[in-house]
Amino acid sequence: MNFSFEIAKTDATGARRGKLTTPHGSIATPFFMPVGTAATVKGLTQGALEDLGAEIILANTYHLYLRPGHELIRRLGGLHRFMSWPRAILTDSGGFQVFSLAQLRKITEDGVRFRSHLDGSEHLLTPEKAAEIQLALGSDIAMVLDECIETPAPRDAAEAALRRTTAWARRARAFFLACASRNGELAQWQFGIVQGATFADLRRESARQLLELDFPGYAIGGLAVGEPHAMTCEVTQEVAALLPKDRPRYLMGVGRPEQIADYVALGIDMMDCVLPTRAARHACLYTSQGRVLIKNARYAQDLGPIDGECSCAVCRRYSRAYLRHLFAAGEITAAILATHHNVHFYLDIMRQIREAIEFGNLAKFSSAMHARYAAGPA
Amino acid sequence: MNFSFEIAKTDATGARRGKLTTPHGSIATPFFMPVGTAATVKGLTQGALEDLGAEIILANTYHLYLRPGHELIRRLGGLHRFMSWPRAILTDSGGFQVFSLAQLRKITEDGVRFRSHLDGSEHLLTPEKAAEIQLALGSDIAMVLDECIETPAPRDAAEAALRRTTAWARRARAFFLACASRNGELAQWQFGIVQGATFADLRRESARQLLELDFPGYAIGGLAVGEPHAMTCEVTQEVAALLPKDRPRYLMGVGRPEQIADYVALGIDMMDCVLPTRAARHACLYTSQGRVLIKNARYAQDLGPIDGECSCAVCRRYSRAYLRHLFAAGEITAAILATHHNVHFYLDIMRQIREAIEFGNLAKFSSAMHARYAAGPA
Repeated sequence: MNFSFEIAKTDATGARRGKLTTPHGSIATPFFMPVGTAATVKGLTQGALEDLGAEIILANTYHLYLRPGHELIRRLGGLHRFMSWPRAILTDSGGFQVFSLAQLRKITEDGVRFRSHLDGSEHLLTPEKAAEIQLALGSDIAMVLDECIETPAPRDAAEAALRRTTAWARRARAFFLACASRNGELAQWQFGIVQGATFADLRRESARQLLELDFPGYAIGGLAVGEPHAMTCEVTQEVAALLPKDRPRYLMGVGRPEQIADYVALGIDMMDCVLPTRAARHACLYTSQGRVLIKNARYAQDLGPIDGECSCAVCRRYSRAYLRHLFAAGEITAAILATHHNVHFYLDIMRQIREAIEFGNLAKFSSAMHARYAAGPA
Repeated sequence: MNFSFEIAKTDATGARRGKLTTPHGSIATPFFMPVGTAATVKGLTQGALEDLGAEIILANTYHLYLRPGHELIRRLGGLHRFMSWPRAILTDSGGFQVFSLAQLRKITEDGVRFRSHLDGSEHLLTPEKAAEIQLALGSDIAMVLDECIETPAPRDAAEAALRRTTAWARRARAFFLACASRNGELAQWQFGIVQGATFADLRRESARQLLELDFPGYAIGGLAVGEPHAMTCEVTQEVAALLPKDRPRYLMGVGRPEQIADYVALGIDMMDCVLPTRAARHACLYTSQGRVLIKNARYAQDLGPIDGECSCAVCRRYSRAYLRHLFAAGEITAAILATHHNVHFYLDIMRQIREAIEFGNLAKFSSAMHARYAAGPA
């Protein structure tokens, strides 16, 4: 099997510096995945992503299942070939989008029935179906279907969701292993997702149950959905301590620039978030000095780069004044340049974090980031 | 003066192979200018334009005057620096946009009063003002303000517009030369624009009057605005024959892929059109075999490139199936990739046309293009 996870160093905080190897290349950990919802990171070509040094991206199963359809992508040779992206891809299970985007959801023990947000068509997503779709897509890492609930959740709702999530994980794992035994070794790793809302005992129970299924990697789901950062960290710490040291840990859907290092210090190896790309399209740029809301009139005559410390292609060439103009004029090029910069910023944070782990000064890096991002919008 | 125009060869059709030199580089003629309305070619970064081999782009005076304002661009070092584009730029006079986009136009002998399409603010564009704005922008080639009328125009309207256009050209030329004598040699060439609708005698009169003003280059305006292609060619031929052989000739706002070579054969050296960029955003792709309307369901599983004969970065990497998916999903990346391909296609047509002139087979090239683009949408 062309998969492996190696840890080169664990620092005093618990942060791990490692390497995740997939059939589509090795990825230095800890890493951040830019989100390519519909088989494209909005505003960036695959060539630009390569230039930026992205070693892995995330694609959304829900979106690709509905359009263009996983069977079409399978026929065309899988997602890597379809989008011409030779590096690694992680797909989510589709669950989160079903719970946030789809209409008329109805959850049963079997799965979740929903209507497409695109055309109202009715679909049933089961643990087996979510696994099957992701096998058709051919992503390197697939996630099991879990039930996502709103936060804060009452205890009984969290318990019921957890029961289903575990049952679904068992079925997803069984389906995946059956495919593997039928078809020979699969070019995919399947990860489990620990749920349990903000209840420590439920999280522990979820982790214990999932460990029995022997996933090669574990995600922590249902966090960073509105609860305070301190609580996200508390639950993450609790769960991470229960997960096997030798397997990758993925905190789903995080985070703000200043929070990334905190999660890494809790032993997280993998993250993803739409924030850098979505914020870019809304003219919010991340810099070493904090956020820059580039539409602000104060930048109208500012000939400086977005970030004087940034080495990205946008900062080397364009001024804040020009970026502001492009946003004011509603130009596509504004989204292209802003996204390029923000993704560079996130990938560069990760490079700095990996170096900080090696040199044993992650806590210092984290404090500096918090100081610079003390206030303001996300 | 860092400007010159040299002709290396004139072929049997009258097509000219030459070189236009500006302070921002030499441009092989005949050339096509991608349109960068608001100081950006929609969907392309300046780096992408350089990679595509664009040696000159066109920017719109009307748009830049309204937003971000020519004075701001002047303060920031001119348009080249503002948009970080080191190669040549031609600016139009703003006239065409005032007549097509602005509200409540009122034309007087002095100029044209209008309301901004952005915020309704009132402005007066005079020949002097149009020249002043373009000097502030610092474009390499500036156009005089002309009056654009609708086609077909009644003769008396065409006569009145022509009278004003000539009077405005005199004032624009005088203003420009006064600036030059006050400030020393200007880093800009100012071109005149021949008008006269589709009346041969008016066109001749316009050309004769403008020649007296001794512009370093001449444009033909008011064509390709709805009249049949044969008529565009007829008027272009008539006018081109009257223009000085040693000066560049610019046919404004053309054209379709299959028409470009026709204009070159009539002695045209310069063209511009929003077609390749606008069509790209509407999923119309130009190829060596004709137009490809990429949203069509027939491309859903087509793993071939947009154009098998195309060497552009998009055709080398992505399939028709992927492009179709991106358009169906409404992704920004669709516009980026499609624009890249279409601009490559136009610039490549020009490369082929320049070579065809050198080898004496432009007519053959033209016939082949017409055969491939015989039918279908623009």
